[in-house]
Amino acid sequence: MKTFNRSTLNTLEARYRTRLINSLSGFKSANLIGTQDADGQLNLAIVSSVVHLGANPPLIGMIMRPNSVPRHTFSNIIDTGLFTINQISTEFWQAAHQTSARYEQEQSEFDVVGLTPEFLENFDAPFVAESQLKYGVKLLEVKHIEANNTEFIIGEVCQIHVADSAVRNDGYIDIESLETVAVSGLDSYHVTNRLSRLSYAKPDRPVASLTVDGEKTAPNADYFAVVRN
Amino acid sequence: MKTFNRSTLNTLEARYRTRLINSLSGFKSANLIGTQDADGQLNLAIVSSVVHLGANPPLIGMIMRPNSVPRHTFSNIIDTGLFTINQISTEFWQAAHQTSARYEQEQSEFDVVGLTPEFLENFDAPFVAESQLKYGVKLLEVKHIEANNTEFIIGEVCQIHVADSAVRNDGYIDIESLETVAVSGLDSYHVTNRLSRLSYAKPDRPVASLTVDGEKTAPNADYFAVVRN
Repeated sequence: MKTFNRSTLNTLEARYRTRLINSLSGFKSANLIGTQDADGQLNLAIVSSVVHLGANPPLIGMIMRPNSVPRHTFSNIIDTGLFTINQISTEFWQAAHQTSARYEQEQSEFDVVGLTPEFLENFDAPFVAESQLKYGVKLLEVKHIEANNTEFIIGEVCQIHVADSAVRNDGYIDIESLETVAVSGLDSYHVTNRLSRLSYAKPDRPVASLTVDGEKTAPNADYFAVVRN
Repeated sequence: MKTFNRSTLNTLEARYRTRLINSLSGFKSANLIGTQDADGQLNLAIVSSVVHLGANPPLIGMIMRPNSVPRHTFSNIIDTGLFTINQISTEFWQAAHQTSARYEQEQSEFDVVGLTPEFLENFDAPFVAESQLKYGVKLLEVKHIEANNTEFIIGEVCQIHVADSAVRNDGYIDIESLETVAVSGLDSYHVTNRLSRLSYAKPDRPVASLTVDGEKTAPNADYFAVVRN
Protein backbone atom coordinates (compact mmCIF):
# COMPACT_ATOMS: atom_id res chain seq x y z
CA MET A 1 0.00 0.00 0.00
CA LYS A 2 1.07 3.57 -0.71
CA THR A 3 0.39 6.12 2.05
CA PHE A 4 -0.10 9.87 1.67
CA ASN A 5 -0.32 11.93 4.85
CA ARG A 6 -0.99 15.66 5.13
CA SER A 7 2.64 16.64 4.68
CA THR A 8 3.23 14.40 1.63
CA LEU A 9 -0.11 15.58 0.16
CA ASN A 10 1.10 19.16 0.45
CA THR A 11 4.23 18.44 -1.58
CA LEU A 12 2.35 16.98 -4.58
CA GLU A 13 2.18 18.88 -7.86
CA ALA A 14 -1.20 20.67 -7.98
CA ARG A 15 -2.78 18.76 -10.89
CA TYR A 16 -1.49 15.40 -9.62
CA ARG A 17 -3.06 16.16 -6.26
CA THR A 18 -6.35 17.25 -7.86
CA ARG A 19 -6.61 13.99 -9.80
CA LEU A 20 -5.71 11.95 -6.72
CA ILE A 21 -8.24 13.62 -4.41
CA ASN A 22 -10.95 13.49 -7.08
CA SER A 23 -10.53 9.70 -7.16
CA LEU A 24 -11.22 9.16 -3.46
CA SER A 25 -14.99 9.39 -3.26
CA GLY A 26 -15.57 6.39 -5.56
CA PHE A 27 -17.79 6.28 -8.63
CA LYS A 28 -19.67 9.53 -9.28
CA SER A 29 -22.93 10.24 -11.03
CA ALA A 30 -22.79 11.80 -14.50
CA ASN A 31 -25.46 14.39 -15.21
CA LEU A 32 -26.09 17.39 -17.41
CA ILE A 33 -27.66 20.41 -15.73
CA GLY A 34 -29.97 22.39 -18.01
CA THR A 35 -30.80 26.03 -17.24
CA GLN A 36 -31.76 29.27 -18.92
CA ASP A 37 -31.23 32.88 -17.96
CA ALA A 38 -33.94 35.54 -17.67
CA ASP A 39 -33.63 36.25 -21.42
CA GLY A 40 -34.10 32.59 -22.38
CA GLN A 41 -30.42 31.98 -23.19
CA LEU A 42 -29.86 28.24 -22.69
CA ASN A 43 -27.02 26.66 -20.76
CA LEU A 44 -25.88 23.07 -20.24
CA ALA A 45 -23.13 21.87 -17.91
CA ILE A 46 -21.82 18.49 -16.83
CA VAL A 47 -21.81 17.89 -13.07
CA SER A 48 -20.50 14.81 -11.22
CA SER A 49 -21.69 15.73 -7.74
CA VAL A 50 -25.46 15.14 -7.84
CA VAL A 51 -26.44 13.23 -4.71
CA HIS A 52 -29.69 11.74 -3.37
CA LEU A 53 -30.95 13.64 -0.30
CA GLY A 54 -34.30 12.03 0.44
CA ALA A 55 -37.39 10.46 -1.08
CA ASN A 56 -40.16 12.15 0.90
CA PRO A 57 -40.10 14.98 0.00
CA PRO A 58 -38.11 14.06 -3.15
CA LEU A 59 -34.87 16.03 -2.70
CA ILE A 60 -31.62 16.16 -4.60
CA GLY A 61 -28.35 17.96 -3.84
CA MET A 62 -25.31 19.02 -5.84
CA ILE A 63 -22.04 20.83 -5.26
CA MET A 64 -21.13 23.81 -7.42
CA ARG A 65 -17.96 25.83 -7.49
CA PRO A 66 -19.25 29.16 -8.80
CA ASN A 67 -15.86 30.37 -9.92
CA SER A 68 -15.25 27.34 -12.14
CA VAL A 69 -16.98 26.35 -15.35
CA PRO A 70 -20.61 25.91 -14.25
CA ARG A 71 -20.73 29.58 -13.16
CA HIS A 72 -23.48 30.38 -15.70
CA THR A 73 -25.42 27.38 -14.43
CA PHE A 74 -25.14 28.61 -10.86
CA SER A 75 -26.27 32.15 -11.66
CA ASN A 76 -29.15 30.85 -13.79
CA ILE A 77 -30.33 28.63 -10.93
CA ILE A 78 -30.21 31.55 -8.50
CA ASP A 79 -32.01 33.86 -10.95
CA THR A 80 -34.75 31.50 -12.13
CA GLY A 81 -35.01 28.96 -9.28
CA LEU A 82 -35.26 26.09 -11.77
CA PHE A 83 -32.99 23.51 -13.40
CA THR A 84 -33.15 20.11 -15.05
CA ILE A 85 -30.97 17.07 -14.31
CA ASN A 86 -30.39 14.73 -17.24
CA GLN A 87 -28.56 11.38 -16.85
CA ILE A 88 -25.71 10.93 -19.32
CA SER A 89 -25.61 7.73 -21.38
CA THR A 90 -23.15 6.10 -23.75
CA GLU A 91 -25.01 7.77 -26.63
CA PHE A 92 -23.63 11.23 -25.78
CA TRP A 93 -20.97 10.97 -23.06
CA GLN A 94 -18.28 12.73 -25.14
CA ALA A 95 -20.59 15.60 -26.06
CA ALA A 96 -21.53 15.85 -22.38
CA HIS A 97 -17.85 16.11 -21.39
CA GLN A 98 -17.35 18.87 -23.98
CA THR A 99 -19.85 21.08 -22.11
CA SER A 100 -17.13 21.56 -19.46
CA ALA A 101 -15.18 23.85 -21.82
CA ARG A 102 -15.39 27.56 -20.99
CA TYR A 103 -17.95 28.85 -23.46
CA GLU A 104 -19.22 32.42 -23.33
CA GLN A 105 -22.53 33.23 -21.66
CA GLU A 106 -24.18 33.92 -25.05
CA GLN A 107 -23.23 30.49 -26.41
CA SER A 108 -25.61 27.61 -25.80
CA GLU A 109 -23.70 24.41 -25.04
CA PHE A 110 -26.66 22.54 -26.57
CA ASP A 111 -25.77 24.03 -29.97
CA VAL A 112 -22.03 23.74 -29.65
CA VAL A 113 -21.92 20.07 -28.64
CA GLY A 114 -24.91 18.96 -30.70
CA LEU A 115 -27.51 18.07 -28.06
CA THR A 116 -31.20 18.92 -28.38
CA PRO A 117 -33.04 21.16 -25.90
CA GLU A 118 -36.65 20.31 -25.18
CA PHE A 119 -39.29 21.87 -22.94
CA LEU A 120 -41.64 19.49 -21.15
CA GLU A 121 -44.83 19.94 -19.10
CA ASN A 122 -44.56 23.73 -18.80
CA PHE A 123 -41.27 23.51 -16.90
CA ASP A 124 -39.17 26.64 -17.56
CA ALA A 125 -35.76 25.03 -17.96
CA PRO A 126 -34.44 22.98 -20.89
CA PHE A 127 -34.23 19.19 -20.78
CA VAL A 128 -31.82 17.16 -22.95
CA ALA A 129 -33.95 15.32 -25.52
CA GLU A 130 -31.32 12.57 -25.87
CA SER A 131 -31.43 11.69 -22.14
CA GLN A 132 -33.60 8.72 -21.17
CA LEU A 133 -33.91 9.72 -17.49
CA LYS A 134 -34.36 13.39 -16.58
CA TYR A 135 -36.24 15.50 -14.10
CA GLY A 136 -37.17 19.08 -13.37
CA VAL A 137 -35.97 20.54 -10.06
CA LYS A 138 -37.05 23.61 -8.09
CA LEU A 139 -34.37 25.31 -6.01
CA LEU A 140 -35.08 25.10 -2.27
CA GLU A 141 -31.90 26.33 -0.62
CA VAL A 142 -28.21 27.07 -1.17
CA LYS A 143 -25.78 26.30 1.65
CA HIS A 144 -22.44 28.06 1.38
CA ILE A 145 -19.43 25.92 2.31
CA GLU A 146 -16.91 28.31 3.79
CA ALA A 147 -14.07 25.78 3.88
CA ASN A 148 -13.51 26.01 0.11
CA ASN A 149 -16.00 28.58 -1.14
CA THR A 150 -18.36 26.11 -2.81
CA GLU A 151 -22.15 25.94 -2.75
CA PHE A 152 -24.35 23.00 -1.83
CA ILE A 153 -27.56 23.33 -3.81
CA ILE A 154 -30.70 21.65 -2.51
CA GLY A 155 -33.66 21.16 -4.85
CA GLU A 156 -37.03 19.46 -4.94
CA VAL A 157 -37.91 17.08 -7.77
CA CYS A 158 -41.04 18.39 -9.57
CA GLN A 159 -41.42 16.06 -12.56
CA ILE A 160 -39.64 12.93 -13.83
CA HIS A 161 -39.36 11.66 -17.41
CA VAL A 162 -37.97 8.17 -17.86
CA ALA A 163 -37.91 5.50 -20.57
CA ASP A 164 -40.82 3.20 -19.75
CA SER A 165 -38.82 0.01 -20.14
CA ALA A 166 -36.40 0.96 -17.34
CA VAL A 167 -38.99 1.31 -14.55
CA ARG A 168 -39.20 -2.04 -12.77
CA ASN A 169 -42.14 -3.53 -10.88
CA ASP A 170 -41.10 -2.25 -7.44
CA GLY A 171 -40.13 1.28 -8.50
CA TYR A 172 -36.39 0.65 -9.03
CA ILE A 173 -35.15 2.26 -12.24
CA ASP A 174 -32.69 0.04 -14.10
CA ILE A 175 -30.27 2.81 -15.06
CA GLU A 176 -27.81 0.21 -16.34
CA SER A 177 -30.33 -0.72 -19.05
CA LEU A 178 -30.34 2.97 -20.06
CA GLU A 179 -26.54 2.78 -20.45
CA THR A 180 -26.12 5.53 -17.88
CA VAL A 181 -22.41 6.18 -17.37
CA ALA A 182 -20.45 6.63 -14.14
CA VAL A 183 -17.40 8.88 -13.64
CA SER A 184 -14.20 8.28 -11.71
CA GLY A 185 -11.66 10.97 -10.95
CA LEU A 186 -11.96 14.06 -13.10
CA ASP A 187 -12.30 12.53 -16.53
CA SER A 188 -12.81 8.76 -16.65
CA TYR A 189 -16.14 7.38 -17.91
CA HIS A 190 -17.46 3.88 -17.26
CA VAL A 191 -20.36 1.61 -18.10
CA THR A 192 -21.55 -0.96 -15.58
CA ASN A 193 -22.40 -4.62 -15.11
CA ARG A 194 -24.81 -5.52 -12.32
CA LEU A 195 -23.54 -7.88 -9.64
CA SER A 196 -27.01 -8.15 -8.12
CA ARG A 197 -29.64 -6.33 -6.15
CA LEU A 198 -29.61 -7.35 -2.47
CA SER A 199 -32.44 -7.76 0.02
CA TYR A 200 -33.04 -5.32 2.88
CA ALA A 201 -30.48 -6.28 5.54
CA LYS A 202 -31.69 -7.65 8.93
CA PRO A 203 -29.44 -8.42 11.90
CA ASP A 204 -30.47 -12.05 12.25
CA ARG A 205 -30.16 -13.35 8.71
CA PRO A 206 -27.87 -13.06 5.69
CA VAL A 207 -28.78 -10.93 2.70
CA ALA A 208 -30.23 -12.58 -0.38
CA SER A 209 -29.78 -11.72 -4.04
CA LEU A 210 -32.76 -10.08 -5.74
CA THR A 211 -33.72 -10.05 -9.38
CA VAL A 212 -33.76 -6.69 -11.15
CA ASP A 213 -37.49 -6.56 -10.30
CA GLY A 214 -36.73 -6.96 -6.59
CA GLU A 215 -37.84 -10.59 -6.26
CA LYS A 216 -35.91 -12.99 -4.07
CA THR A 217 -33.77 -15.67 -5.62
CA ALA A 218 -32.11 -18.42 -3.59
CA PRO A 219 -30.16 -17.09 -0.54
CA ASN A 220 -26.50 -16.64 -1.34
CA ALA A 221 -24.85 -19.72 0.14
CA ASP A 222 -21.30 -18.32 -0.05
CA TYR A 223 -22.22 -15.19 1.79
CA PHE A 224 -24.14 -17.13 4.43
CA ALA A 225 -20.89 -18.94 5.24
CA VAL A 226 -18.98 -15.66 5.51
CA VAL A 227 -21.43 -14.07 7.91
CA ARG A 228 -21.79 -17.11 10.16
CA ASN A 229 -18.08 -17.88 10.55
CA MET B 1 -41.40 7.92 -21.93
CA LYS B 2 -43.21 7.64 -18.62
CA THR B 3 -43.86 10.90 -16.75
CA PHE B 4 -44.33 11.41 -13.02
CA ASN B 5 -45.38 14.86 -11.81
CA ARG B 6 -45.83 16.03 -8.24
CA SER B 7 -49.39 14.81 -7.98
CA THR B 8 -48.67 11.34 -9.45
CA LEU B 9 -45.56 11.09 -7.24
CA ASN B 10 -47.72 11.73 -4.19
CA THR B 11 -50.02 8.82 -5.03
CA LEU B 12 -47.24 6.22 -5.26
CA GLU B 13 -46.89 3.53 -2.59
CA ALA B 14 -44.16 4.66 -0.14
CA ARG B 15 -41.53 2.01 -0.88
CA TYR B 16 -42.11 2.21 -4.64
CA ARG B 17 -41.58 5.93 -4.43
CA THR B 18 -38.44 5.53 -2.29
CA ARG B 19 -36.89 3.14 -4.82
CA LEU B 20 -37.85 5.42 -7.72
CA ILE B 21 -36.42 8.60 -6.18
CA ASN B 22 -33.27 6.79 -5.05
CA SER B 23 -32.61 5.88 -8.69
CA LEU B 24 -32.62 9.45 -9.98
CA SER B 25 -29.18 10.70 -9.01
CA GLY B 26 -27.32 8.12 -11.15
CA PHE B 27 -24.55 5.81 -9.97
CA LYS B 28 -23.53 6.32 -6.36
CA SER B 29 -20.29 5.70 -4.54
CA ALA B 30 -20.09 2.68 -2.22
CA ASN B 31 -18.13 3.24 0.98
CA LEU B 32 -17.90 1.89 4.50
CA ILE B 33 -17.60 4.49 7.27
CA GLY B 34 -15.47 3.35 10.22
CA THR B 35 -15.85 5.00 13.63
CA GLN B 36 -15.47 4.28 17.31
CA ASP B 37 -17.15 5.75 20.37
CA ALA B 38 -15.40 7.26 23.41
CA ASP B 39 -15.07 3.77 24.93
CA GLY B 40 -13.43 2.30 21.83
CA GLN B 41 -16.54 0.41 20.67
CA LEU B 42 -16.16 0.02 16.88
CA ASN B 43 -18.81 0.78 14.29
CA LEU B 44 -19.03 0.26 10.54
CA ALA B 45 -21.78 1.49 8.21
CA ILE B 46 -22.34 1.49 4.47
CA VAL B 47 -22.99 4.93 2.96
CA SER B 48 -23.76 5.73 -0.69
CA SER B 49 -23.65 9.52 -0.45
CA VAL B 50 -19.93 10.33 -0.17
CA VAL B 51 -19.17 13.19 -2.57
CA HIS B 52 -16.01 15.05 -3.60
CA LEU B 53 -16.01 18.65 -2.32
CA GLY B 54 -12.60 19.94 -3.31
CA ALA B 55 -8.94 19.05 -3.75
CA ASN B 56 -7.24 22.00 -2.05
CA PRO B 57 -7.84 21.66 0.84
CA PRO B 58 -8.79 17.98 0.34
CA LEU B 59 -12.46 17.89 1.38
CA ILE B 60 -15.15 15.25 1.28
CA GLY B 61 -18.86 15.43 2.09
CA MET B 62 -21.57 12.92 2.93
CA ILE B 63 -25.26 12.92 3.81
CA MET B 64 -26.46 11.20 6.96
CA ARG B 65 -29.96 10.66 8.22
CA PRO B 66 -29.37 10.41 11.96
CA ASN B 67 -32.65 8.68 12.67
CA SER B 68 -31.92 5.85 10.25
CA VAL B 69 -29.35 3.09 10.48
CA PRO B 70 -26.05 5.01 10.58
CA ARG B 71 -27.15 6.80 13.78
CA HIS B 72 -24.25 5.29 15.77
CA THR B 73 -21.89 6.45 13.03
CA PHE B 74 -23.25 9.98 13.24
CA SER B 75 -22.98 10.20 17.03
CA ASN B 76 -19.45 8.73 16.96
CA ILE B 77 -18.37 11.33 14.38
CA ILE B 78 -19.81 14.14 16.48
CA ASP B 79 -18.21 12.76 19.67
CA THR B 80 -14.73 11.94 18.34
CA GLY B 81 -14.42 14.20 15.28
CA LEU B 82 -12.86 11.37 13.25
CA PHE B 83 -13.95 8.73 10.75
CA THR B 84 -12.52 6.57 7.99
CA ILE B 85 -13.89 6.10 4.46
CA ASN B 86 -13.18 2.71 2.86
CA GLN B 87 -14.07 1.96 -0.78
CA ILE B 88 -16.09 -1.24 -1.20
CA SER B 89 -14.86 -3.81 -3.70
CA THR B 90 -16.23 -7.03 -5.17
CA GLU B 91 -14.31 -8.92 -2.47
CA PHE B 92 -16.73 -7.85 0.28
CA TRP B 93 -19.75 -6.05 -1.22
CA GLN B 94 -22.29 -8.40 0.39
CA ALA B 95 -20.70 -8.09 3.83
CA ALA B 96 -20.69 -4.31 3.31
CA HIS B 97 -24.43 -4.33 2.52
CA GLN B 98 -25.09 -6.38 5.67
CA THR B 99 -23.74 -3.51 7.83
CA SER B 100 -26.98 -1.65 7.02
CA ALA B 101 -28.93 -3.97 9.36
CA ARG B 102 -29.94 -2.44 12.71
CA TYR B 103 -27.36 -3.82 15.09
CA GLU B 104 -27.15 -2.69 18.71
CA GLN B 105 -24.61 -0.06 19.77
CA GLU B 106 -22.53 -2.66 21.63
CA GLN B 107 -22.20 -4.88 18.53
CA SER B 108 -19.32 -4.20 16.16
CA GLU B 109 -20.40 -4.60 12.54
CA PHE B 110 -16.79 -5.59 11.79
CA ASP B 111 -17.29 -8.76 13.86
CA VAL B 112 -20.79 -9.53 12.70
CA VAL B 113 -20.11 -9.31 8.97
CA GLY B 114 -16.56 -10.66 9.08
CA LEU B 115 -14.45 -7.63 8.13
CA THR B 116 -11.15 -6.77 9.83
CA PRO B 117 -10.58 -3.50 11.71
CA GLU B 118 -7.10 -1.98 11.48
CA PHE B 119 -5.55 1.15 12.96
CA LEU B 120 -3.08 3.01 10.76
CA GLU B 121 -0.65 5.88 11.37
CA ASN B 122 -2.00 6.82 14.81
CA PHE B 123 -5.43 7.66 13.42
CA ASP B 124 -8.10 7.08 16.09
CA ALA B 125 -10.79 5.47 13.93
CA PRO B 126 -10.83 1.96 12.45
CA PHE B 127 -10.03 1.27 8.79
CA VAL B 128 -11.26 -1.80 6.91
CA ALA B 129 -8.21 -4.00 6.28
CA GLU B 130 -9.86 -5.58 3.22
CA SER B 131 -10.32 -2.20 1.46
CA GLN B 132 -7.69 -1.25 -1.11
CA LEU B 133 -8.47 2.51 -1.03
CA LYS B 134 -9.23 4.16 2.31
CA TYR B 135 -8.56 7.41 4.08
CA GLY B 136 -8.83 9.05 7.46
CA VAL B 137 -11.07 12.12 7.73
CA LYS B 138 -11.31 14.86 10.37
CA LEU B 139 -14.75 16.42 10.87
CA LEU B 140 -14.83 20.10 9.86
CA GLU B 141 -18.49 21.03 9.92
CA VAL B 142 -22.04 19.67 9.98
CA LYS B 143 -24.73 21.49 8.02
CA HIS B 144 -28.27 20.67 9.01
CA ILE B 145 -30.72 20.33 6.12
CA GLU B 146 -34.05 21.50 7.46
CA ALA B 147 -36.06 20.33 4.45
CA ASN B 148 -35.83 16.67 5.50
CA ASN B 149 -33.91 16.67 8.77
CA THR B 150 -30.68 15.25 7.36
CA GLU B 151 -27.09 16.30 8.00
CA PHE B 152 -24.42 17.20 5.48
CA ILE B 153 -21.07 16.27 6.99
CA ILE B 154 -17.94 18.02 5.74
CA GLY B 155 -14.53 16.54 6.52
CA GLU B 156 -10.88 17.03 5.66
CA VAL B 157 -8.79 14.14 4.31
CA CYS B 158 -5.83 13.55 6.67
CA GLN B 159 -4.20 10.39 5.32
CA ILE B 160 -4.74 8.10 2.31
CA HIS B 161 -3.89 4.41 1.96
CA VAL B 162 -4.17 2.95 -1.53
CA ALA B 163 -2.90 -0.13 -3.37
CA ASP B 164 0.29 0.98 -5.12
CA SER B 165 -0.65 -0.53 -8.49
CA ALA B 166 -3.78 1.64 -8.80
CA VAL B 167 -2.06 5.05 -8.62
CA ARG B 168 -1.32 6.12 -12.18
CA ASN B 169 1.44 8.42 -13.43
CA ASP B 170 -0.61 11.61 -13.33
CA GLY B 171 -2.27 11.04 -9.93
CA TYR B 172 -5.49 9.41 -11.20
CA ILE B 173 -6.41 6.34 -9.14
CA ASP B 174 -7.71 3.50 -11.29
CA ILE B 175 -10.52 2.48 -8.95
CA GLU B 176 -11.85 0.11 -11.61
CA SER B 177 -8.64 -1.95 -11.25
CA LEU B 178 -9.42 -2.20 -7.52
CA GLU B 179 -12.85 -3.63 -8.42
CA THR B 180 -14.54 -0.80 -6.56
CA VAL B 181 -18.32 -1.19 -6.88
CA ALA B 182 -20.97 1.40 -7.69
CA VAL B 183 -24.54 1.48 -6.35
CA SER B 184 -27.80 2.32 -8.10
CA GLY B 185 -31.07 2.85 -6.31
CA LEU B 186 -31.16 1.51 -2.76
CA ASP B 187 -29.71 -1.93 -3.26
CA SER B 188 -28.17 -2.62 -6.69
CA TYR B 189 -24.40 -3.17 -6.96
CA HIS B 190 -22.36 -2.87 -10.13
CA VAL B 191 -18.83 -3.30 -11.43
CA THR B 192 -17.56 -1.10 -14.25
CA ASN B 193 -15.87 -1.13 -17.65
CA ARG B 194 -13.98 1.99 -18.68
CA LEU B 195 -15.10 3.71 -21.86
CA SER B 196 -12.10 6.05 -21.75
CA ARG B 197 -10.54 8.97 -19.95
CA LEU B 198 -11.10 12.22 -21.86
CA SER B 199 -8.86 15.27 -22.29
CA TYR B 200 -9.57 18.59 -20.58
CA ALA B 201 -12.29 20.23 -22.70
CA LYS B 202 -11.51 23.47 -24.57
CA PRO B 203 -14.04 25.53 -26.54
CA ASP B 204 -12.15 25.46 -29.83
CA ARG B 205 -11.33 21.78 -30.22
CA PRO B 206 -12.91 18.36 -29.71
CA VAL B 207 -12.01 16.21 -26.73
CA ALA B 208 -9.54 13.37 -27.20
CA SER B 209 -9.41 9.97 -25.56
CA LEU B 210 -6.70 9.48 -22.94
CA THR B 211 -5.01 6.30 -21.77
CA VAL B 212 -5.52 5.29 -18.14
CA ASP B 213 -2.23 7.13 -17.43
CA GLY B 214 -3.64 10.34 -18.93
CA GLU B 215 -1.67 10.25 -22.19
CA LYS B 216 -3.30 11.36 -25.43
CA THR B 217 -4.23 8.80 -28.03
CA ALA B 218 -5.45 9.74 -31.50
CA PRO B 219 -8.27 12.34 -31.49
CA ASN B 220 -11.66 10.69 -31.64
CA ALA B 221 -12.70 11.06 -35.27
CA ASP B 222 -16.35 10.15 -34.68
CA TYR B 223 -16.76 12.71 -31.99
CA PHE B 224 -14.97 15.35 -34.03
CA ALA B 225 -17.69 14.90 -36.65
CA VAL B 226 -20.46 15.25 -34.09
CA VAL B 227 -19.12 18.50 -32.66
CA ARG B 228 -18.43 20.10 -36.02
CA ASN B 229 -21.78 19.29 -37.60
